[in-house]
Amino acid sequence: MTLEEKTISAIRGLVIDMTNKAKSGHPGMALDAAPALYALWHDHYKADAKKAPNAKARDRFVLSSGHVSALLYAFLFLDGVLSKEDIESFRQLGSKTPGHPEYGYTDGVDATAGPLGQGIAQAVGMAIAEKKLSYIDKSEHHYTYCLCGDGCLEEGISQEAISLAGLQELNRLILLYDANESTLDGPTSNSMREDVKMRFLSSGWDVIEIANGEDWKAISAALVRAKESEKKPVLIYFHTKIGYGSPLEGSHKAHGNPLGEEMGEITKKRFGISWEAFSVPDDCLKEWREAREKLTASLAKEEQEEEKITALVTKSIAAIDEVAFKEKESTRSTSGRILQAIVATSPYFLGGAADVAGSVMTALPGDPSFFPKTLNGKNMDYGIREFAMAAINNGILLHKGLKTYGGCFLVFSDYMKNAIRMSALEHLPAIYLFSHDSIAVGEDGPTHQPVEQLVALRSIPHLVTLRPADAKEMKAAWKMALESKDHPVALILSRQNLPLLASSSEEGTRNGAYVIAKDENPEIEIIASGSEVSLALEVKKILNEKGISLMVVSMPSMELFRNKEKQYQEEVLPLPYEKRYSLEMLSPLLWHEWAKHTIGMEGFGASGKESDVEAHFGFTKEEVAKKILSTLEK
Amino acid sequence: MTLEEKTISAIRGLVIDMTNKAKSGHPGMALDAAPALYALWHDHYKADAKKAPNAKARDRFVLSSGHVSALLYAFLFLDGVLSKEDIESFRQLGSKTPGHPEYGYTDGVDATAGPLGQGIAQAVGMAIAEKKLSYIDKSEHHYTYCLCGDGCLEEGISQEAISLAGLQELNRLILLYDANESTLDGPTSNSMREDVKMRFLSSGWDVIEIANGEDWKAISAALVRAKESEKKPVLIYFHTKIGYGSPLEGSHKAHGNPLGEEMGEITKKRFGISWEAFSVPDDCLKEWREAREKLTASLAKEEQEEEKITALVTKSIAAIDEVAFKEKESTRSTSGRILQAIVATSPYFLGGAADVAGSVMTALPGDPSFFPKTLNGKNMDYGIREFAMAAINNGILLHKGLKTYGGCFLVFSDYMKNAIRMSALEHLPAIYLFSHDSIAVGEDGPTHQPVEQLVALRSIPHLVTLRPADAKEMKAAWKMALESKDHPVALILSRQNLPLLASSSEEGTRNGAYVIAKDENPEIEIIASGSEVSLALEVKKILNEKGISLMVVSMPSMELFRNKEKQYQEEVLPLPYEKRYSLEMLSPLLWHEWAKHTIGMEGFGASGKESDVEAHFGFTKEEVAKKILSTLEK
Repeated sequence: MTLEEKTISAIRGLVIDMTNKAKSGHPGMALDAAPALYALWHDHYKADAKKAPNAKARDRFVLSSGHVSALLYAFLFLDGVLSKEDIESFRQLGSKTPGHPEYGYTDGVDATAGPLGQGIAQAVGMAIAEKKLSYIDKSEHHYTYCLCGDGCLEEGISQEAISLAGLQELNRLILLYDANESTLDGPTSNSMREDVKMRFLSSGWDVIEIANGEDWKAISAALVRAKESEKKPVLIYFHTKIGYGSPLEGSHKAHGNPLGEEMGEITKKRFGISWEAFSVPDDCLKEWREAREKLTASLAKEEQEEEKITALVTKSIAAIDEVAFKEKESTRSTSGRILQAIVATSPYFLGGAADVAGSVMTALPGDPSFFPKTLNGKNMDYGIREFAMAAINNGILLHKGLKTYGGCFLVFSDYMKNAIRMSALEHLPAIYLFSHDSIAVGEDGPTHQPVEQLVALRSIPHLVTLRPADAKEMKAAWKMALESKDHPVALILSRQNLPLLASSSEEGTRNGAYVIAKDENPEIEIIASGSEVSLALEVKKILNEKGISLMVVSMPSMELFRNKEKQYQEEVLPLPYEKRYSLEMLSPLLWHEWAKHTIGMEGFGASGKESDVEAHFGFTKEEVAKKILSTLEK
Repeated sequence: MTLEEKTISAIRGLVIDMTNKAKSGHPGMALDAAPALYALWHDHYKADAKKAPNAKARDRFVLSSGHVSALLYAFLFLDGVLSKEDIESFRQLGSKTPGHPEYGYTDGVDATAGPLGQGIAQAVGMAIAEKKLSYIDKSEHHYTYCLCGDGCLEEGISQEAISLAGLQELNRLILLYDANESTLDGPTSNSMREDVKMRFLSSGWDVIEIANGEDWKAISAALVRAKESEKKPVLIYFHTKIGYGSPLEGSHKAHGNPLGEEMGEITKKRFGISWEAFSVPDDCLKEWREAREKLTASLAKEEQEEEKITALVTKSIAAIDEVAFKEKESTRSTSGRILQAIVATSPYFLGGAADVAGSVMTALPGDPSFFPKTLNGKNMDYGIREFAMAAINNGILLHKGLKTYGGCFLVFSDYMKNAIRMSALEHLPAIYLFSHDSIAVGEDGPTHQPVEQLVALRSIPHLVTLRPADAKEMKAAWKMALESKDHPVALILSRQNLPLLASSSEEGTRNGAYVIAKDENPEIEIIASGSEVSLALEVKKILNEKGISLMVVSMPSMELFRNKEKQYQEEVLPLPYEKRYSLEMLSPLLWHEWAKHTIGMEGFGASGKESDVEAHFGFTKEEVAKKILSTLEK
């Protein structure tokens, strides 16, 4: 056994120890991918989470198969980032070693992973950021590495990301694919019989195939070649057997359960492991640390990316203040004009839409678009790939150094829902632009008319949603989106024109909700958001004519309002619960928190002219007034 | 101009007329794909929506590019299914010609389409159903055709579906890909530079490439060849220019806006259209109808698939009653035992999971799985492809003749959200099994612990969600899922064991909510679902000891309860709003409809042992009792 083999054995031993002690975890792929990851970390991976965790030029590593976390933690233990106590408390509450790697929680973890396929897309985002930043700043290049298994490649988002990576010629992106012939339910061939090499070649990648994944030297040599790629991202496609070396080798039973004491001992014996559990022999550790030290010596201790972004935000917000108001404008158009003003202030913007740039208004006139040959472009053509767009933007933000945003129709936020969740879990200031925000979409009909999507978004923890009622609220919303450092923000935009409201307010918007109109001694209170605020004000006129005094509240963000102090909440909602009405041309289900009476969409929309559809579902000032009056008569 | 060319021109004329009159719609692809679809319908497509709309052996057609609806409607007009009035009211409220094709709304529309990529997956589902049914019944074969553009292929779900179609050797599935070189935002090459042919070959498809999409005879000949495929699904990859023949030919501006009067006239002139708007020359129509009549003559008028499914449901429900109770069992396990009992009753079951069959308990011991060579298998290995699984099952249901179901972890319902919406929009009795339904997932941590997913599901119109508290409720839930004819049902399943409750009831479950425990003169009321019902009963004991009398309600389904008559609702919720508490280890946001006080998860979960995680977030009987007591003291 060479010293290198001994170290690989030690890594495998740690995996067995961690999963056995936790009585939980996934040893299968962790065992078989150990040599490949050894080749990467020992010979190539230039990152030091202890000494230079924020080094701009460090390589990035994404474990797309997040369930194999024990393997990553073993390497972080070798690097001295995690302690013996850390890996002994694998998968225990409060430990640094949760079941799946969590960004911002464990040093050396570049991305949260677990939801399959998204790791690849996040790595693509990192590689895009690297390409853009090295172009702007002429800064040192680095590589983005990603390890995945069959699961990630079966998920459709992988194809979206792979296709874009090929188009963008991300030659510093290297994907290691562990083809271990097994998924959780059985042989991989039960669910996937693709020619994976051909699939990647069809998307403009280079592929290096390694027949024996145990041959770490071959993998290291492949990495040398891959790093020399001039135009293409590279797949290193290596073959292994799941649970390698264990009695369960080759069986899907190795996937998701610890080996247990007995099989663990047998496996350790096969690998020549005679040393203590949760330990690595001194000679291995010494050689490892020397090799790693040499690799990472040149890394700068610290970089001040944050200051750059703070300056950018300050300039952007000043630019927003310069944007002129219009008497009537859709919030998507106001947003588009704001966006153009913002991105003009700094080269560090890169964002776009999922092939609806002209509709969500992310198009940048005159911009060459971010293509292999026009790296100065700030617009990104993500294609009709909502899910990858969101995950790629998460990757751009994980990389740091750029501001990004992504847009699509609100109804298709469905396609990317879990990536929005990941923005929130990873505490990333992602910016989502969702336009066509109600049945006012009109002719495109129920498949394109959101009803329940805002409910879904509003329920994602840590995500702030904002549905502005007019251009003033829109400005505040964009400012808050830019200011965020630790949470995603979704801006919900109208397709149709909305009037500029006399009493709308940026400050009120920042509070989540505020009184926008109020009679003396109001009997009832209407709470609305977005396009329905102006409708509510029209309804108010009718009710006033009938002798009913009332107040109208604009509530662009439930989340922000929920976090306000009680006193403010009571100022905005002074009337008892029974006297409050919500008005939103969307599912009313979440409005029960604020109002006894809810006026909303009970089912799906319908295809027709905007005004016809609105009238059909009762969203005219007359019908809404009638509905409210009918409850008052009772 | 040959007669065939004249008919193709007439079809194009109708597209121009429809979109121009509506001042809305997508003429671009409709113009360029007309010859290809003419080749299909005129020479091959064996379906007659007028004479034999439910013929089992009819071919199926899915317009995956749903925005090209005008083209489909033009063919249905030629077939006499739609009237002149129908196509004149294109995209108008209440017309038979909505913006995107809607299944169950317009005769001859085999699938709702619009959300890109899902049409392909639905077509795959239809072809799977065809394969299975022709094996079971030795019935006549038919083909499934699908038309798509770049958008569908950019969406990741297409890769998931394509990969499975290849594996399953769906040789009667023929996908027509209109490569018209443009997406909404610009040239396709801005977002996609794949070698599409190679991509499909890598998934086990045959590919026939047609250089000139105007050559309908070449496309018809390709269809002849494709229909002879013995093992592989076939892609017919034809090249066109978007907006063919119009002044906007080749420009993305042709995609989503009508040509308008002037350009419409120019285009009509180029195509030699001299006849009236919204009409087809008599000689064209005569020849068309003769050709179509010949193609479809053999189709049986009507098939009685519904009776078969009704009988299957009756037998299945009887089988459920035979399933024995256990004192302690997770609802996923009870569900698994029920499922096994059900599928044993009939050959017409085909379902499975997204590579978590052993966890969601859809595994069928002894079943050979549905593979190319074991068509008797009832278990389907969908792979790690949640989105495609859901859309494929929609396709199976659209085809009719089989019962299906699909399972994954609740948190990954995110990945398939829009396909669940499509089940609801299409009125399909899809069955979803979502297990691991709370932070009780434990060690796998926040990426795998659902918090907000049930909020999202509960907000989808027409979807019924059921979160059973024990085996009795589980039985009722499965029965309701099977009985549904027109709406999808999602069963939300626990990972952890739950006790069999003394007072749980099937009838109560069917009502959506019911009183499961009640003291005399209750002061407060706790409403819970699923695993939290037994927790609420434990909390009741503590509160009783403190001298507080209360009642506990099990609410497995908000949707069902919401639809109950008022009297029943008041029986279940007799106490005033202020006296009600909800208890669910998930986002509490929707519970405001039923209770003033909500006890739930405010943020994401955490990785750790189940009991540790539950305690950390306050979900022990002691902590819950304490929380309730603290509100009573106020």
